[in-house]
Amino acid sequence: MVAGHARLFAIIGDPIHHVRTPAVFNAYFAEHSIGAVCVPIHIRPEALEAGFAGLKAMANLDGFIVTAPHKERVAGLVDRLEGDGALVGAVNTVRREPDGSFTGTMLDGHGFVAGLARAGHGAAGRSVYIAGAGGAARALAFALAGAGIARLTIHNRTRARAEALLAAVETAYPRIELALGTRDPRGHHMAVNATPLGLEPGDGFSFDVDLVEPPTLVAEVLMKPETTALLHAASARGCPIHQGRHMLDGQRDLMMAYFGLARPAAAA
Amino acid sequence: MVAGHARLFAIIGDPIHHVRTPAVFNAYFAEHSIGAVCVPIHIRPEALEAGFAGLKAMANLDGFIVTAPHKERVAGLVDRLEGDGALVGAVNTVRREPDGSFTGTMLDGHGFVAGLARAGHGAAGRSVYIAGAGGAARALAFALAGAGIARLTIHNRTRARAEALLAAVETAYPRIELALGTRDPRGHHMAVNATPLGLEPGDGFSFDVDLVEPPTLVAEVLMKPETTALLHAASARGCPIHQGRHMLDGQRDLMMAYFGLARPAAAA
Repeated sequence: MVAGHARLFAIIGDPIHHVRTPAVFNAYFAEHSIGAVCVPIHIRPEALEAGFAGLKAMANLDGFIVTAPHKERVAGLVDRLEGDGALVGAVNTVRREPDGSFTGTMLDGHGFVAGLARAGHGAAGRSVYIAGAGGAARALAFALAGAGIARLTIHNRTRARAEALLAAVETAYPRIELALGTRDPRGHHMAVNATPLGLEPGDGFSFDVDLVEPPTLVAEVLMKPETTALLHAASARGCPIHQGRHMLDGQRDLMMAYFGLARPAAAA
Repeated sequence: MVAGHARLFAIIGDPIHHVRTPAVFNAYFAEHSIGAVCVPIHIRPEALEAGFAGLKAMANLDGFIVTAPHKERVAGLVDRLEGDGALVGAVNTVRREPDGSFTGTMLDGHGFVAGLARAGHGAAGRSVYIAGAGGAARALAFALAGAGIARLTIHNRTRARAEALLAAVETAYPRIELALGTRDPRGHHMAVNATPLGLEPGDGFSFDVDLVEPPTLVAEVLMKPETTALLHAASARGCPIHQGRHMLDGQRDLMMAYFGLARPAAAA
């Protein structure tokens, strides 16, 4: 039960009803007897500056998670950027410092790589197709490059953003083979949807899943439904799939460590 | 467990660790299967405007409770005042309207009167001494006057504020006998602490409890500890006491009705 002395964590986004972070965090807090609660906060784009200032005004709020569509704008609002936050220009995890200021980082990419590894999928030497060039796609691109993939293809509806991402990755990781993609994901070990397409009923797909063939692994960054329409379609074509929840499950411990709440796993 | 689709309620104050509202509200939400959570939010005075704007930016926040020291300033921030909120110039309960705006009211006084009644203490015809002239004291003064007390004495360290409160009560309830008090509470059916004195260790008392005699009822608006040092002292002198929690217990149903969440009591 949440009491007056609770420390607060939050996740902000628009929409917010679909997020799994509060359930995952609150289970962790309960498991480790941490007197904190994580709540979902629905902040629309036009209210982001006021909402951000409000979070800063809440002295018992120790940190928050940022989801779509706010990851890039929050990178411009925090007091400082760390790690992939600076590289990607987007943040998904913000920590309160002792002086009250906010530091942001981006853990999506490392969480995605950690989630792949936990599911038995290596990254080193592989070829990866990513649909999207926003915050999630940028995070995945840099983290996968850092994890040693050999080839990366980026496809984005707005081509200039894909080109900008490829150029940024090339600067940081010049040895990777890079390409601008189309809606056709064939010829890769893995094809990833890193766009918001699939959040709303009636959304189309970010790439032509009808062309994908085994053994290509089809992966998602969206977490609800657990198996998106894209993953269902890929599965129907015989492809192995990788749900978005793995990115969060792979990230929970990274986020807790960032908040200073890392705990050894409870005894079974 | 708090999930992504939860509706939010909050209580704001400084300090916040002592508040009982989240526990009371969350028990009510659980009892009635309402998908909502109430969280404590620590907002310091210098951050109130930003914190208030932040609450407005949180689209899934349906309302909030206001405690010391913010009740009067929030009355100046909400989009409109209702009921005792307008009369008292302070609010403790704020509701989100369908258009996103905030309406505030003051339920402390009605909650205090309801709590007295539930404990078997009537108000009609009685004489009451109140220490304090802030938001809580003003709310109690108007609600007790409305409930038919015969005589009201107000004592406040800053005398001008007590005089202003007496003048306002006189305008609204000209038939009540009114007096400016001293630290001596003798000669009343009830003596109430309606100041924050007692929240912090080492606080003194707002009136001379050493002078109070049975059968005067000594009452509190502070809720933590359940029995404050003032109530202990009164009890030691043989006086009946009335804890601050009764004001909140008496108010819970009023607040839920204000939020549109009134429910019939669950079957035993």
